[in-house]
Amino acid sequence: MEIKIMQNELLSLINISLRAISLKNNTSILEGILFIVKDNQLTLKSTDLELAIETSTECKVEKEGEVLLNASMISNIVRKLPNDEVYIKVDREKVFIQSENAKFNIIAMDIYSYPEFPTFENKVDFYIQENLLKVATKQTIFAAAIDDYRIVLNGVDVEIENKNVDFVALDGHRIAKRSFKIEEDIEKKVIIPPRALNEISKIVPEGSVVGVSLVKGSAIFTFENTIFSTRVIDGEYLNYKALFSYEHKTKVTVARRDLINAIERANIIYKAEKGDLVTFTIDDSSILVEGSSEIGDLKDIIDIKKEGDNLKIAFNSKYVLEGLKTIEQDFVEITFNGRAGACIIKPEDENIDYTYLVLPVLLQDSQY
Amino acid sequence: MEIKIMQNELLSLINISLRAISLKNNTSILEGILFIVKDNQLTLKSTDLELAIETSTECKVEKEGEVLLNASMISNIVRKLPNDEVYIKVDREKVFIQSENAKFNIIAMDIYSYPEFPTFENKVDFYIQENLLKVATKQTIFAAAIDDYRIVLNGVDVEIENKNVDFVALDGHRIAKRSFKIEEDIEKKVIIPPRALNEISKIVPEGSVVGVSLVKGSAIFTFENTIFSTRVIDGEYLNYKALFSYEHKTKVTVARRDLINAIERANIIYKAEKGDLVTFTIDDSSILVEGSSEIGDLKDIIDIKKEGDNLKIAFNSKYVLEGLKTIEQDFVEITFNGRAGACIIKPEDENIDYTYLVLPVLLQDSQY
Repeated sequence: MEIKIMQNELLSLINISLRAISLKNNTSILEGILFIVKDNQLTLKSTDLELAIETSTECKVEKEGEVLLNASMISNIVRKLPNDEVYIKVDREKVFIQSENAKFNIIAMDIYSYPEFPTFENKVDFYIQENLLKVATKQTIFAAAIDDYRIVLNGVDVEIENKNVDFVALDGHRIAKRSFKIEEDIEKKVIIPPRALNEISKIVPEGSVVGVSLVKGSAIFTFENTIFSTRVIDGEYLNYKALFSYEHKTKVTVARRDLINAIERANIIYKAEKGDLVTFTIDDSSILVEGSSEIGDLKDIIDIKKEGDNLKIAFNSKYVLEGLKTIEQDFVEITFNGRAGACIIKPEDENIDYTYLVLPVLLQDSQY
Repeated sequence: MEIKIMQNELLSLINISLRAISLKNNTSILEGILFIVKDNQLTLKSTDLELAIETSTECKVEKEGEVLLNASMISNIVRKLPNDEVYIKVDREKVFIQSENAKFNIIAMDIYSYPEFPTFENKVDFYIQENLLKVATKQTIFAAAIDDYRIVLNGVDVEIENKNVDFVALDGHRIAKRSFKIEEDIEKKVIIPPRALNEISKIVPEGSVVGVSLVKGSAIFTFENTIFSTRVIDGEYLNYKALFSYEHKTKVTVARRDLINAIERANIIYKAEKGDLVTFTIDDSSILVEGSSEIGDLKDIIDIKKEGDNLKIAFNSKYVLEGLKTIEQDFVEITFNGRAGACIIKPEDENIDYTYLVLPVLLQDSQY
C-alpha cells in the first residue's frame, strides 16, 4: 500500500473512525483502524462490535493494499503533522509516514484476526436532515434508563408510521418524545442504543442529509462518504401512549429561562449534586418555587399565564430541569392533572412536536 | 448587618475571596468567608492559614455588623441571582438574601472560633505591573520542585537588588529565571510558594499595578481594593548562579514553534504521557530531532542558524518542551556546552530577560 493524501482529509477520516473505537474494550485488535486502499479510494473501518463505521475519500494511490494501525497512535501522529500532503507507504508490517521533513517509522498491527465487517443491503428506508436527527437525539437520549433489567428501556424507541417518526426514551420517572415528519410512507420499529445516536450526532456534518436503513438486528445511517451501523436492542418497547392522554386540570404558560433559574436556585439549598425536591405552588398569575433543607430555604416567584385549578405539587428538580433545558423555545406550556398526576411540558410553539412527561413526588398531606 | 449591593460587584468580591479557601483543609471554620460591614464598606476576608485575602468595596449600608458564611453556599447563591441589587440582612445566625422575587433564608456559621487575621505595616517595597507579575510567575513556577525535602526548592526565589528583581525556580533537572527592572533601589530576598503566585495571577485585574511588601515571614501583594498575603518559605536558597556562567561551544537560533512541533512528534513514539528521551543532532544548518522506542521512531529536520561545534545531545523531552512553551517570542537562542553540559534557552529578543537552563541525559558512548 502506498498513498498520498492531505493531512486535514486524513485527520477527518480518522476522527470519524475513532467514534467506534471503544476504550472500554479489552480486545486489543479492536483498538485498530483498518486502512483499505483500492480504486483511488482510501477507506477506514473501525468497530467495537456494537458500532461499525466505514468512511472513505479519494486519494493519490501508488499501490493498493491494506493495513491495521493502532487508532490512538495513528491519530496522534496525523494530528501533529503539518497541514500538507502526507505520504504513507506500507511494506508488510513496516509503516512509513512522511510529511515535509517529519518521518515516522511504526509497526502495523496484525490484521489476521480482525473481525469480519458487517455488510448491508443498501436500501434506505427514510431520509432525515442532520439538524433534526441531532435535536431528536438530544431531546430524548438523556431520559433513557441506564442498566435497567428491562433492556428495551436502555434504548431509544424509534417508531415510524404514517410518514411520522417518533423518538421516545423513558425511565421510571419521565418520558421524552420527539416526533417529526418524513416523506416516506413506511412502517417500522426499532430500539437504538443511546450511545449510537450520540456518536452519530458528533460526526454528521452540518447541512447533510442522513439515510436511515432499518434491517434485522441493525440500524444503518449513511451520510456523505460514511456508513455508520449499530446493533439494535431486541424486544418490544413499553406501551407508554396511554400515559400521554389525560384531561388536564391546570395549564400554565411560563418563560422557560425564568423557571430554570428558580429551580436552580432551589437546588443550591441541597448539598447533593443530584438536586432534590422542588415544590410549585400555582395560583392565578404566578408560581411560587420553593426548596428547603436543613441548611436553609429558597422562595422564588415567577409570572405565568394560567388556566384551570390552583395546585401545589412537588418534583425531583433534576427531572424537571433536564426536560426544560433540552427545549430550545423561549416559552413552555405545562399541563398538570392534580398533585398526584403526571405533568407534561411542551414548547409553546406548536410546530415543534416535543413532549416531556414527568411524574411528581408525593408529599405528606400536611405539606399541601 | 444590613446592606444593598449590586450582584456583579458582590460576585467579584466572592470570586477573589475563594482563592484563599482551600478544599483540602479539614478545618470547617476555614470554609467560611467573613463579611464585615463598616463605614459604607463591605470587606470580605478569607484564609487557609497560608494565604489570606482581604477585599473591599463600597455598598449601601443600613446597619453595620459581621457574619461568617459558608464560601461555597454563598458563592452558589450569588452566582445564581439576577444581575440586580442584592439585599442582605443578618439577624444573629439568620441570614436573609433577596434579589427581585428570589428570597433565600440560610444559617450563618459560628464566627466565634474564626482565626485572628494577620495585619501588616502597610509599607510597599516595590511596585510591579500586573502583566509582568503574571509572566514572571508563568515562566518560573512550573520549574519549582514538588515536595522536595529541601523545602526552599519548593518555592520561587525572589531576589531584589540594584533595581532588579529575579524570579527563580529550579528542581534537579532545570532552572527557570525571569528578571525585570523596578524603580525602587532596595535589597531583599524571599522564597514564595508557587501556589500563592498562581492564585494572585488569577485575581489581579488587567492593567493594575501591584504593590509588594516583604516583611518577616510574609509577602503582601496590594492591588486596587485587595490585600493578598502569603506565608513565605524559611531558609537560604541554593546558589545557582555559577551554573549560568560558562563559555558555550555551540550556539543555535531556531524557530520556537518548529522545535516544539518536532519534539511533540517524537513524544508520540512513547506510550507514557510524561514524554521521554529526544535527541538533537546539530550540524551547520539543521537539527535532526529524533525519538524512538519499541513501537517506532520519528526523525524530523529543522532549519537553524548555528555557530560553533556540531553536537549530538539527548534530553528528557518534557523539560525542554516546558521551557520552550513558556517563552512568548517566535525565535529562541540555544547554547550548548558539549554533550554532558547544561543547555541554556533564551528568547532571541534581548529585551526579554528570561533564561531557562536544562541538563542533558547521557547516552551510552555507542549512541553518539
